[in-house]
Order: sequence, then C-alpha cells, then structure tokens
Amino acid sequence: QETVSSAATDEARRAEIDALRARLESLEKRQARDHEELEEVRAVMAPIAPQLVPPGPATAPVDTARAVAVPVPGAKVTDVQVEWGAGAPIFRSGDGVFSFKPRGRILLDVSGSGGSGYEARNITTTGSRALRLGIEGGVGPHLFYQFESDFAENGVDVVTAFLGWRHKVLGLDYDIRIGNLFNDRGLEGSTGSDSTPFVERTVVGTAIIPQRGFYGIGAQGRLFGPNWHASLTLTGDDVDSAYAVNDSRTVIARAHWNPVKTDTTVVHVGAWGFDEKLSSAAGTVTRNTVIGGRFNGSLRVSTGPLTGATGDTGYGAELGGYWRALWAMAELGRREVRLAGQRDFLSDAWSVSVGGFVTGETPPYNPRFGNFTQPKVSRSILDGGPGAIELTARYERLAFTQESRLGEGWAATVGVNWYLNSFTRLMLNGIHWHTDNRGGDFAGGDDGETVTLRAQVSY
Amino acid sequence: QETVSSAATDEARRAEIDALRARLESLEKRQARDHEELEEVRAVMAPIAPQLVPPGPATAPVDTARAVAVPVPGAKVTDVQVEWGAGAPIFRSGDGVFSFKPRGRILLDVSGSGGSGYEARNITTTGSRALRLGIEGGVGPHLFYQFESDFAENGVDVVTAFLGWRHKVLGLDYDIRIGNLFNDRGLEGSTGSDSTPFVERTVVGTAIIPQRGFYGIGAQGRLFGPNWHASLTLTGDDVDSAYAVNDSRTVIARAHWNPVKTDTTVVHVGAWGFDEKLSSAAGTVTRNTVIGGRFNGSLRVSTGPLTGATGDTGYGAELGGYWRALWAMAELGRREVRLAGQRDFLSDAWSVSVGGFVTGETPPYNPRFGNFTQPKVSRSILDGGPGAIELTARYERLAFTQESRLGEGWAATVGVNWYLNSFTRLMLNGIHWHTDNRGGDFAGGDDGETVTLRAQVSY
Amino acid sequence: QETVSSAATDEARRAEIDALRARLESLEKRQARDHEELEEVRAVMAPIAPQLVPPGPATAPVDTARAVAVPVPGAKVTDVQVEWGAGAPIFRSGDGVFSFKPRGRILLDVSGSGGSGYEARNITTTGSRALRLGIEGGVGPHLFYQFESDFAENGVDVVTAFLGWRHKVLGLDYDIRIGNLFNDRGLEGSTGSDSTPFVERTVVGTAIIPQRGFYGIGAQGRLFGPNWHASLTLTGDDVDSAYAVNDSRTVIARAHWNPVKTDTTVVHVGAWGFDEKLSSAAGTVTRNTVIGGRFNGSLRVSTGPLTGATGDTGYGAELGGYWRALWAMAELGRREVRLAGQRDFLSDAWSVSVGGFVTGETPPYNPRFGNFTQPKVSRSILDGGPGAIELTARYERLAFTQESRLGEGWAATVGVNWYLNSFTRLMLNGIHWHTDNRGGDFAGGDDGETVTLRAQVSY
Repeated sequence: QETVSSAATDEARRAEIDALRARLESLEKRQARDHEELEEVRAVMAPIAPQLVPPGPATAPVDTARAVAVPVPGAKVTDVQVEWGAGAPIFRSGDGVFSFKPRGRILLDVSGSGGSGYEARNITTTGSRALRLGIEGGVGPHLFYQFESDFAENGVDVVTAFLGWRHKVLGLDYDIRIGNLFNDRGLEGSTGSDSTPFVERTVVGTAIIPQRGFYGIGAQGRLFGPNWHASLTLTGDDVDSAYAVNDSRTVIARAHWNPVKTDTTVVHVGAWGFDEKLSSAAGTVTRNTVIGGRFNGSLRVSTGPLTGATGDTGYGAELGGYWRALWAMAELGRREVRLAGQRDFLSDAWSVSVGGFVTGETPPYNPRFGNFTQPKVSRSILDGGPGAIELTARYERLAFTQESRLGEGWAATVGVNWYLNSFTRLMLNGIHWHTDNRGGDFAGGDDGETVTLRAQVSY
Repeated sequence: QETVSSAATDEARRAEIDALRARLESLEKRQARDHEELEEVRAVMAPIAPQLVPPGPATAPVDTARAVAVPVPGAKVTDVQVEWGAGAPIFRSGDGVFSFKPRGRILLDVSGSGGSGYEARNITTTGSRALRLGIEGGVGPHLFYQFESDFAENGVDVVTAFLGWRHKVLGLDYDIRIGNLFNDRGLEGSTGSDSTPFVERTVVGTAIIPQRGFYGIGAQGRLFGPNWHASLTLTGDDVDSAYAVNDSRTVIARAHWNPVKTDTTVVHVGAWGFDEKLSSAAGTVTRNTVIGGRFNGSLRVSTGPLTGATGDTGYGAELGGYWRALWAMAELGRREVRLAGQRDFLSDAWSVSVGGFVTGETPPYNPRFGNFTQPKVSRSILDGGPGAIELTARYERLAFTQESRLGEGWAATVGVNWYLNSFTRLMLNGIHWHTDNRGGDFAGGDDGETVTLRAQVSY
Repeated sequence: QETVSSAATDEARRAEIDALRARLESLEKRQARDHEELEEVRAVMAPIAPQLVPPGPATAPVDTARAVAVPVPGAKVTDVQVEWGAGAPIFRSGDGVFSFKPRGRILLDVSGSGGSGYEARNITTTGSRALRLGIEGGVGPHLFYQFESDFAENGVDVVTAFLGWRHKVLGLDYDIRIGNLFNDRGLEGSTGSDSTPFVERTVVGTAIIPQRGFYGIGAQGRLFGPNWHASLTLTGDDVDSAYAVNDSRTVIARAHWNPVKTDTTVVHVGAWGFDEKLSSAAGTVTRNTVIGGRFNGSLRVSTGPLTGATGDTGYGAELGGYWRALWAMAELGRREVRLAGQRDFLSDAWSVSVGGFVTGETPPYNPRFGNFTQPKVSRSILDGGPGAIELTARYERLAFTQESRLGEGWAATVGVNWYLNSFTRLMLNGIHWHTDNRGGDFAGGDDGETVTLRAQVSY
C-alpha cells in the first residue's frame, strides 16, 4: 500500500498531534493537581514550633486551619487526605473542609516503694494512669470539637468534651470553647498527662487546684499573641450526676509570655489564679496529695478532715525556658480555702525542674499554650535510631497549714524518658520522698524511695 | 543531519501517533473511572428526604445501600471512598461493599431555675445530656451493625448495639435487627436525643414508656411503604447485670402514615402501643418525671412510692406535619400499670408543639421513620451564612393517678435552635413550669421558670 | 493555506511526537505505581494460615509487618491504603509505615433454662457477653499498640492495653508486650470471646485460671517457631483501683507444638501452667463457675466460702487438631490453691470438643498462637452463598475439692454456628447440665437444659 505525503494528510496528522497534546496536557494537569494539593497541605501543616508534632484539628491555629481549608479547584468532594505520624491518622476531606481524628492514650505503670518506717508503705503495685478513647474533629477553619473519656481504674471519667470556635480579633488569634474544659493553670497543670516530664505533675499542679479538679463544664476564651497567650475560664462542676443543689462556680485566668524566643532559646514567664464559690455539697476539702507515687495509696501528704469550706482562691507563677537541648522550670503557688467559722486552710507548693535531651532534641515546650507537649524525635528507633533520651531532675515541696501545720512533704526525683518515637515513651523515675503528716495512719516524719516505670502511647 | 520524508518514515510516524493515541485513551479512561464512580456514589446517596443529611451505613434504605454496593468495573479492591459532612467521615470500600463510620454525640447543658416557692428548686447546675462514642458499619447492601455507649454523668450506658439485615418483601423494604434496640414509640420518643426540637422530649415521650426504659435486648422488624412504616419489637431487659430472675418481656408496635407528602407539605399520623409483663425484680414503678429541666433534680412530677406492679400497657397517637418552613405536632398517650391487689396506676400525657425556620429550611422530619432528625442547613456559618435558626414553642401536660391524683404538672416552653451547620447546634429553651405533687419534698402547687442552654455536636 | 512537507517541519513534528511520548510514558508510570503498590501490599498480606482472615497491626508476624513497611519509591507520604474485610477498615499509610484500625465486638445473648428441680433456675434472660470499643495501631514493622475496653453489663472493664515490640532472634520471630495482657493459658482460655466454638469457654478455661482473672498488668514474651510457640508472662493485678497493699504476682507459661501441619491436617499438642503469690487483699477464692449458661445467675458449680488463700498453682494440657473440615480438641487442667492452715483447695476440669463445617471450611485454628480465631467463609451470604455452617459438640466436667468434694458438675453441649461472613455469627447452643453442689441455695444433684442464642459482630 502506498502512502501519499500530500498536504491534506499532513494537515490531518498535525491536527492529530495537536489534539493528542491537548488531551495529554489536560490529563497531566488533573494528575498534577493532587500533588499540588498535597504540597499545599503539607506547607500549611508547619507546626506551632519546629520541635513539635503537627497539631490536630482541635488545636491548630487559625491560619493553619484556614489554609488547610482553602478549597483546591477541581478537588473531588469525596476525596480524603490522611496525615500520619500522630499515633492515629488524621483524616481530612480533599477540599480541606472536614477533618477527623481518633484520640486516646495508654499510660500503664508499675511502682515499687521501700525504705519507709511504715511497712504498709513498702509495697509494689501496678496502675493505670490514663486509658483514653475519643475523637476530635473540625469543620472549616473556625469550628472544632473534641470528646475523650478515660477508663483508667476500670471507671469512666469524661475528660475533654467541647465545641469550639476560633477566629481573629485585632490581628490576634482567639478561640472560645464551651463544654467540659481542662484548666489553664500553671505550666505542668496545663500539660496533658501524656506530656509531663515526670510520671507525676509537680505538687504545684496537683495541690494548687480548684476543688472540682482538672475539668469543669463552662466556657473558656483564649487570646494568642506572637509570644504570649492569655485565657479566662468560667465553669460549674465537672461532668457528674449531682443536680440537687447549685454547682460550684469557678473562674480561672492565666497568661504566659516569652520575652526571649529564638530558634535555640526561649524564656517563659507565667502567672495564673482562680477563685471558687463552693457548692453546699462541696464543703469537704480534705487533701491527700500524691508525693512519691500515685499507685502507692499510702504515700500522701494529708490534712486530716477539713469541712465547712465556702470558697477558695489560688494563684501561682512560672519561670523557666530552654536553651538548645536543656530546659529548666520553676513553679510556685498558694491556695487559700475559706472555711465557715475557722481560719483559712493554706496550701503552699513550689518546685524546680531541669531536663535535657542527650540525643539533642529541642525540649517539647509549646510557645502557643505555654506548656509541654510531645517532642519531635530526630532519629526514631523505627528508622534505626536511638529514639530520644531525656534526663530529668526535680525538687518539690508542699505544705498544708491551718491553725498550725497539718502536713508537709518534699520529693526529689531523677528520671529518664526514652521516646521510641514521637508518641511512645518509656519513663523511669526514682523518687526520694519525705512526708510529715500530723495525723492519720502515717503520722510523723517518714522517708523512703519509690521507683516507677511507665509505658506510654498517645494517639 | 538529513530527514527523508519517505513513505516508510511517514508510515512509522502515523503508527507512532496511533499508538500514542491508544495509550492516551486508555489512560484517560482509567483517570475518568474515578470520576464516574464518584458520580454514581453521589447519585445513589440521595437522601431519604431532600432536607435530611444522607443516612449512615445502618440507616440507609435497601436501594441506597444496594446501589452503593454495585461494584464498579476496575475499581481497586483496597480503595476507599470517604463521605464527609456528618461530623465523622463515612468510609466506604472502593467497590462499595464495606462501610464504616465512627459515631457519637456531645450534648452539654447549663440550666438555671427561679421563681419557685421552694428555694431548693431555684438552683443553677451544669449537666451532660449525652456523651457518646461508637461505630456503625455495613457489609454489602443487606447486613449492618451498630454499637454506641453513653458516658454522660461519668457512667456507662450501652445504648444501641445490634446486628441487622434489610431486604425487600412484596416490593416493600424491611429490616430486622437483633441486639439492644431503641423503642419505636411516639414521634419524639423515637427521635434521638440529638434531634429533639426542645432540650427535653415531650412528657408523652418521657412518661408513657416501658418500665425498662428506652432500650431492650431483643428483635425488631420494620416494614417501609412509600408513605408509611410499621414496626414490631419484642425484647427482654436493657443491657444490665441482673441474671437471678426472668427478664421483663416487652412488646412494642408502632405505625405512621403520611396521607399528604409533597415537596412542601407533609401530614403525619401515627399510633403506637406497648405491653409489658414485668419481672419479679421490676415491681417498683415510682415515677419522678422531668417537667422543667433534667438538670434540676428537684423539678419533677412525682408519684410517691408505687410497688407491686406485675405489668403495664401504654398507647398513644400522633398528628402533625409541616408546610414549607413551619411544623406542628400533637402527641398524646396513656400508660396503665397493673398492681397486685391495687387499682391501676395511670399516666396521662399530651403535648402540642410548633416550630419554624426563620432561615427557610424545611423541618427535619424524616418520612421514613416518622421522627425528627438533623436538618440540612442551607447557609452554614462555615460558608459565611447565618446557619439555620428555628423558633419553637410547646405546651405539655402530665398527670399521674391511682386511687386519686398523685401528681400533675404542665410546662410551656419557647425556644431558639441555632444550627451552625447540620451537626452542631446551640439551643436555648425558656420554660414556665407548674407542678402539683400530692406528696414528697415539693408538695402542692408550685410554679417557676427554667432557662437551659445547650451546646451540641453529633458525629 | 499551503502545507510544506519540508525536512524542517518534519523534524519538528517528530520532536513533538517524541515529547508527547515521553510525557505519556511518565504519566503512565505515575498511574501504574499505585497499582503496583497495591499488588505488593496484597502479596505480603498473606495470612498466617490460609483459612484465617489477615492479621491486624498488632497480631501480624514480623515478616508481614516488615514487608508492608517497605517504602515504595515515589509513594505520597499522605497517601492511605485501606484494607477491608475485617468488620472495621485497616488504614495504612501509603509508605506502609503506619497502620491503624478501630476494634471492638458486639456479643448479645438470650438464654432460657428449664428442667431444673429448682424453679429459680428455670428462667429466661438476656445478656451482654461483650460490648467493646478500642483501637490497634502499628508504626514500622516492629512497634505496635492496642487498647480495648468492654462495656458489657453497663460497666467498664479494660481488657487489652499494651505497647509491643517484635523482631527476630536466632531466626525466630519473637514479641514482647508490656501493659494489660490477656493470659496465654490453654487453647480456649487463649481464644478471644468472639472466637470460641461454643457460647462459653470450656470449664478448663473458666475454672483453671489465676485468681486475678483473664488479664494482668505486666510483661509478656512470646517466641514463634515454624510449628510451635512458647510464651512467658509476669504480671501484677488487672487494671483496678486498689493501691493499699502489694499486688498479687502471677507467672504464666505456655507452649504449643504442631507435630503434623499440612494443608488439610494439623495436630495440636499444648501444655501450660501458672503460679500466683496472692496479695493480702486477694485471700477469698470462693468459686461460682458457669456450667450451663452465663446469663442464668443460679446455674453455677459453687464451692461455698473459701478464705485465707496465700497462693495457687495451675497447669493443663491440650491435644487435638483438624482434618479437612473436622476438628477435635481435648483439654484438661488442675488448680491447687494454698490456704493458710487448711488443706489445699483443688479444681479439676476436663473437656472433649468436636466440630465440623458442613459448608467445607477449614476450622479456624491458628497455628501461630495455638488457639481459635475467625474463619474465612468460602461463600458469604453477602455473595449470595449460604455462609459457613459449623456443627459442634462438647462434653466437660468440673470438680471442686478440699477436705471433701465441695461441688461438681458436667455439661453436654450441641451447637450450630452460622457465620454470615467472616466477622458476623449467629450461635445456637443446647446444653444439658448437671450440678451437685454440697451447699448454698442449689445443693444436691440437679439436672436441666439451657438454650442460648447469640448474635455476634467483631470489628
């Protein structure tokens, strides 16, 4: 068969080639769009601080959340983008509007004590510090929600449960949340149980606390500057089943400031306070505060019975920071409980903590909220690295006083935290503790040591 | 270098172009298939009623579920299609066979009362109406399952937990479910706690109820016509830990009919009834029914102690509908409890409710089940719109009688519901209530007002 | 217009075609990579045994987990691969590093008894055998974690909660897990509640058990050979809130061996033992062991009160296997409880079970762990098939002895298991039981029948 190279066939061939090119270009564009979307998403996923894992739907700043939410032209509405690396996947719709993430944490301990003059204190026990399941989600850049329940000790304890809104005012980020809210109160008091540098929070965090505990149902507003934040919270009681009398009413405020904030150095200054009007059902304010180990039930600084409380006020201050891989933090606080017809009951607590990553990581201090969170591990054991290894030390002191001293104690802790990756951790804490309770089963001066080993996963 | 435009090279070039075209066509087809699959999925995802959000795996009609399950030629078996818009994503396998969705809801209230002659009733409390976690899933068009547990008040209450099967018989959809099942009993009694138009169900829903409550373990069959449905349920007790004596046995039946059903107008008629043979452990039928607010424990219509019950029968009727953005619903019911050697204990309740969306949405009445569900918000605040705003009003009346009147009450409620989007809602209800209990701590006529604010997310 | 077929234009056209071809080739490669990734993932997803559903993130062998984790060049880091077929989807990152799966199970029963000489035993009840929610996840081939809580009977019971590591030593797979761990103890004792061939485990599994129950917080190491495994576990108490005294300390060991292991035939031999040092709070070892049905609270083999226990030792043996669709298993065990100043309390139990799939499936015996799991259903009802139908029979006997016989019983069970697909099951068990308790409310010889129907979903 013969081929004729006429102008007509040549013209047809050129048209064919043009048509093919057009179709190919169109297809390449469609294919490329997914990659672009991905790049955009990853770009705006830049963390709050370089050493932190990216924030979830409920903790992202406005700009991040908004940027993720910019619809990409032509994106499939049923598409999904999945972000890994946080223990549980974060699901996002292809257009960035919706996000959803399972949440939870597993913290299990074994704890042994010795050296006490009281044999009942020299025991070894296992315990569940936190066993949580929950979710967090977001719709668009402004609306988010979260729910988490703790099943530690085979019980139910609803922790966070809220609906939130974030936006900008006067060029500053803010958010407002209504629901069951975690106190913003001191650096370690505002740090999640999966992010504290020691197995237990400082006594400032455990003793200078509202009577209703770490959570309350109400509303919280937070305002974020470039190197500070401030918050105000108004709540009733925690999630409970008591509806016979008025709830207690608690107001909490806190602010933190980073006068120095560079890539290698941060200085942290913070102050906070709360005031409670106690419900008629909340008049008993007896304290038995953990000093050496939560899972040794006899190891407490105790007040003996205290009843008839009508209200209380607490306040505290924080000073610390980090330089390269080293950090230090001092906290102190006082709580004054008003008791009908009696002198005020006072709790005084302070602590100094230091730590450092021998593997060189920057400490997981969060400059947005002024608290600790999970570190970004440079060489995870999953990549054949050593994980991150942090050495820590703390001294803390607590005293309860009314007419006279009711009880006091101090603890000195050294610890090693081994982060296998950013969301799993093994912790070993050795604690020398001293208690001097004026009553109860363990009265008088007593010293001993407690060693606690924790296995932890956050997702 | 020289180019020869011979017939041979021309032939080769034409072959090249043909080959390129073939490959491009193949690639275009593969690329296009995803879009087609998406279109198909979206087409069959048409909701039960245009104003409703699409149903999840466990609530979809047979045709929807079946259509989703039609395998698309060439679909990847490990692929996933994600459907957003319902608070939590719905995951579907690429071939449509499997689906899975996290489930839950967050409903938190603050409630204040005043104006009562009893000071103990004039209190302000916070409360958790529902705090749920769970899942729902489906396999193929016929098999589905669901599990959800409620952690409100820091307790555990297993709500839905079932395995279900749906198919067609005589051209009608049916489903059969076995497990822990929600009563099909009255319009608001059959409405989820996240979809009731007021913070609390009508007294018909809360008082004309089986002794075992809203749930029971057993089997339920439902038949769906084009404008009606009917159900029959047989259960023992709710999820519990009581295995010493026979369970109670409850039979429930309900049917609803929409004699008028157009795009703008629906008329709803319904009737229902139940009969219980009470376990020897369930003889105490004392009632303390919420009248002004669940989270004011003193605000109840009460019977005083009632024991010795052997069985009970309840029945009710519903009449209502909607026209454009306005809806109205009347319900009434009676419950007769048989007591050994005593006269029957009677509960009589009725209510009339009206509502309307000032933002123009069609009321979220579900013509498949004859109940309320979540609305489709026209202009979500996430799109810069106002959300959906609904105004509501209700009058309801409840009376308990045995030898004589034991207690009675009524409440008049006005409310505003603000749906930020289809699955988040802020509710404000103002209630004037009246109780007249013949005994107990709050005997005699008493009037007052309760204001309740609720924040809600369903996922 | 005229077309000139000059060498120059011809050269240009050839260049255009070459360019188009190059772009097309590049695009085809990108498109093809997803398919290849999928093939690779599916290839390495080969199950532990051909009749089993593929293992989840926490139960996969090292090689499977490692193979999944091999990064595919050019994979998108935010990509997701979803594996369906296990009730809940398994999400994997595109590079195979991360995996995550929701977990849970729904097991609901109705149970009726008759024929007893005691009327209180002739009752019908409903019950919740298991109602679980949880997650499992993995990072890389070595690290995995799991958490699951059970809400049966409207309570909380934390079941598995651990962090694990798996690797190879001397050419053998091993894993180490720390957290709240399920006993490795007998074939049915090591089988999940959703995989037992009968509604209740054999009395060897329910009576020859550590005092602390099925779970304890501690560490477990397991070593896996080609046709055997061995495990060693050291734990304190289960998840609880008792921190006043030392935990009990439990050591458990088990090994199984498959001397014959072909496609159609497996022989199973196993042995196990445990030793407990009991806490001063765990001295009460009274037993009321289920014989005919868990949800008939009066149907128990009982010891009467037994206190003052200081420790106990248990041991047992297993012999069985399968041939084509038929299986048989014999188990026996003894437990010796040491009581201060009294003779040992002995529990003796044995059972023989047989079963077979009339639909031809291979029994779901798991040769990796030496226990039962979910079967792979050949013709699921979702594909229009009959599902899998298994007929079962068991005889079991239990005796409690101290100075004299305290109580004894036996049960003969016949059953039908209908697996609709691999993760849903309806079970019907008919049990003739005999108890002879020497004390308590149901003393003396008594016989009767119990019929139990179960609906089950695992995800």
